[in-house]
Amino acid sequence: MNAHIISIGDELLIGQTVNSNASFIGNALSDIQIKVIKISVIGDDKSVLINEFKEALDNADIVITTGGLGPTHDDLTREAVIDFFNTELVKSDAVLEDIKERFARLGRTVTRINEDQAMVPKIGRVIRNYHGTAPGYWIVQDGKIFIVMPGVPFEMKAMMEEFVIDHLKEIIEPQLKSFTKNRTLLTTGIPESTLYEKLGDLNELLGDAKLAFLPSQFGVKLRITVTESNEELATNKLLEIEQRIRGLVGRFIYGKGNEELFEVVARLLTSRGLTIAIAESCTGGHISNLLTNVSGSSKYFERGIVTYSNAAKVEMLKVDEEIIAKYGSVSLEVSRQMADGIRAISMTDIGIAVTGIMGPLGGTSSKPVGTVFIGFCDEKVCTAQKFQFGDDRLLNKQRTSQTVLEIIRKYILGIPFDE
Amino acid sequence: MNAHIISIGDELLIGQTVNSNASFIGNALSDIQIKVIKISVIGDDKSVLINEFKEALDNADIVITTGGLGPTHDDLTREAVIDFFNTELVKSDAVLEDIKERFARLGRTVTRINEDQAMVPKIGRVIRNYHGTAPGYWIVQDGKIFIVMPGVPFEMKAMMEEFVIDHLKEIIEPQLKSFTKNRTLLTTGIPESTLYEKLGDLNELLGDAKLAFLPSQFGVKLRITVTESNEELATNKLLEIEQRIRGLVGRFIYGKGNEELFEVVARLLTSRGLTIAIAESCTGGHISNLLTNVSGSSKYFERGIVTYSNAAKVEMLKVDEEIIAKYGSVSLEVSRQMADGIRAISMTDIGIAVTGIMGPLGGTSSKPVGTVFIGFCDEKVCTAQKFQFGDDRLLNKQRTSQTVLEIIRKYILGIPFDE
Repeated sequence: MNAHIISIGDELLIGQTVNSNASFIGNALSDIQIKVIKISVIGDDKSVLINEFKEALDNADIVITTGGLGPTHDDLTREAVIDFFNTELVKSDAVLEDIKERFARLGRTVTRINEDQAMVPKIGRVIRNYHGTAPGYWIVQDGKIFIVMPGVPFEMKAMMEEFVIDHLKEIIEPQLKSFTKNRTLLTTGIPESTLYEKLGDLNELLGDAKLAFLPSQFGVKLRITVTESNEELATNKLLEIEQRIRGLVGRFIYGKGNEELFEVVARLLTSRGLTIAIAESCTGGHISNLLTNVSGSSKYFERGIVTYSNAAKVEMLKVDEEIIAKYGSVSLEVSRQMADGIRAISMTDIGIAVTGIMGPLGGTSSKPVGTVFIGFCDEKVCTAQKFQFGDDRLLNKQRTSQTVLEIIRKYILGIPFDE
Repeated sequence: MNAHIISIGDELLIGQTVNSNASFIGNALSDIQIKVIKISVIGDDKSVLINEFKEALDNADIVITTGGLGPTHDDLTREAVIDFFNTELVKSDAVLEDIKERFARLGRTVTRINEDQAMVPKIGRVIRNYHGTAPGYWIVQDGKIFIVMPGVPFEMKAMMEEFVIDHLKEIIEPQLKSFTKNRTLLTTGIPESTLYEKLGDLNELLGDAKLAFLPSQFGVKLRITVTESNEELATNKLLEIEQRIRGLVGRFIYGKGNEELFEVVARLLTSRGLTIAIAESCTGGHISNLLTNVSGSSKYFERGIVTYSNAAKVEMLKVDEEIIAKYGSVSLEVSRQMADGIRAISMTDIGIAVTGIMGPLGGTSSKPVGTVFIGFCDEKVCTAQKFQFGDDRLLNKQRTSQTVLEIIRKYILGIPFDE
């Protein structure tokens, strides 16, 4: 079965909001073997909505809309649904109860426009909203399924997880004749074209499977897709191709799927029982934040210090004032002393430090914006390395953090680090 | 004039990549008075691409595609363009030169598949790519403009900024008969329906203008849109409506447009000449990171400490060990002592501290996941306050950070803080 996702809202068209809802739904549908054939984004305009509903139902088995269900005048999805399906509004007592309970819990008064949200299309059934006031609708017509949800991400996600996915699975699973599965291998430090050439003859490598290359600033993702008659065969085929790819470019692969590099590093630190402390200057806490995004991070993360001022570097990390005067606070020597200092005061296995110029201001001819020094100490050695990133402040923070995490990963795995 | 944006790539349909490209383009087009009427996302399938090109050109004056221009086998956009416009490929010496220069600079060898990227559609002109190997195309047919760009965000953005926007402006500006402008006011701490009711009769408030409500976990954005015969009238009208809205709900408005709360706070700290230091436990550096996202942050941000361990809290912030033993490290008392401690060692005007349970593990019946204490000290007072957020770790980090920033903002502006 296939699906068309319709995202509704002028804020999406004018680029005020990034369409993360469609990604979430696309991902959830793919997991249960529904192929998303199209995503469209349209504005809050009733006739445009109705036209799109028609086109989507003509081509897809399942249509999912999000957005335009709020209580205000610019929310037109419910009206469009009523017109399109030629039905009428009826009051849902269950929804009205939900709204009243919700408002009582929050200590707020139910307003007239909230009460109006309990009016739902007569055709189809209601999808309860336990995180907001607008209910969703589940409409079946001529064997096709039309699902309407609000656009607020956590309300929509809860409806998907608590209702939509299970109900779709019930319908789809008995009909499945083939099983499509994909796996993504995450690489870093190798350009797309080099990766492509290193993989050699793709027909030989893949057989019937497909391979997609997804490049970004931080690396290239390789997505393998296989279709087999059942899940077990698909899983085996994926594994076989993954192993072949690892044989060819394994040292560039740091993870799989939606894994983040910080999760990989967190797992490695935890499994090896290593502890770490970080002294950050230019990244301002970004690396500490990533390392503590994982539950259980207190096992390996002892402390982080954001020493933005020179005073903080000297007092807290015992960086030598003369070294700062001689080489500048953005220097190889200072990054090494910071790493040494943070490791000493926190008594961890690993001490890491970064100092650099993130921009847009503060660059010089010898140290342009994007210059970063990373210091790394364990009980035996203290080293430091220079990196040159670009001119975008936030991207520089991210690339510096990514590099620090990659240094930690390679250190733990014993892979030499060459930029 | 209006536009249709087509985003190409299976990774978008299966939700592996969020479609930030379309948002960027939508935003850029709106700024130059081009109305985006639709965004569609389709897969790497030649016949699907060709159908979508046709539909888009039937309905819109300008069609912009991104994606599917890479050097690998799954990139089909160029082939689809050739077929759709019934043209052929010719070698572009300029593009080949660009590719060779780029590779020489990076110390890499030009591969056969990179060379092939210099083959471009005979119809139309090339948009040079100074950040990657795939050129874009600018094709004019029957008075309509068809623009093709790669999907790698920074390559596409550079093409937009260095070529596409200026060339579109040249065509559009002489034809403009009306001028549409919008402004977004950012509110926090007030639910959508309450906001709606407080604004009263919208027709009276707005006249011909439009107002959209955009809710999220962090607040509701209000987008005002006006259309007038020229830019000055539009600007004046916007200002007039903004002032009316501020008169009704001003105390909930923290900023405008794409402004982030951390930018507002950074500006306030800078303009008042105040300095700040932060001690974070549960947020793990997230607040420091936000406060240092702004260029010039060293003027107000002195240092941040991520005291994840109790040892770090005691040693670095002089939190009383007995207080930790008595109340636990997640407590009102500890947050106040942390704030006091960080302010004392960094000698700043403001000291802030957070300690809490972000989850998913670590909650107890008296302190469930989402419990957060925020301590705040200036030279006169040291206070602390308890908050209860939800059960999602990353969202809890974000909501805690947002709350801390809002506390700082209100403190500086003298607005009382009630959650």
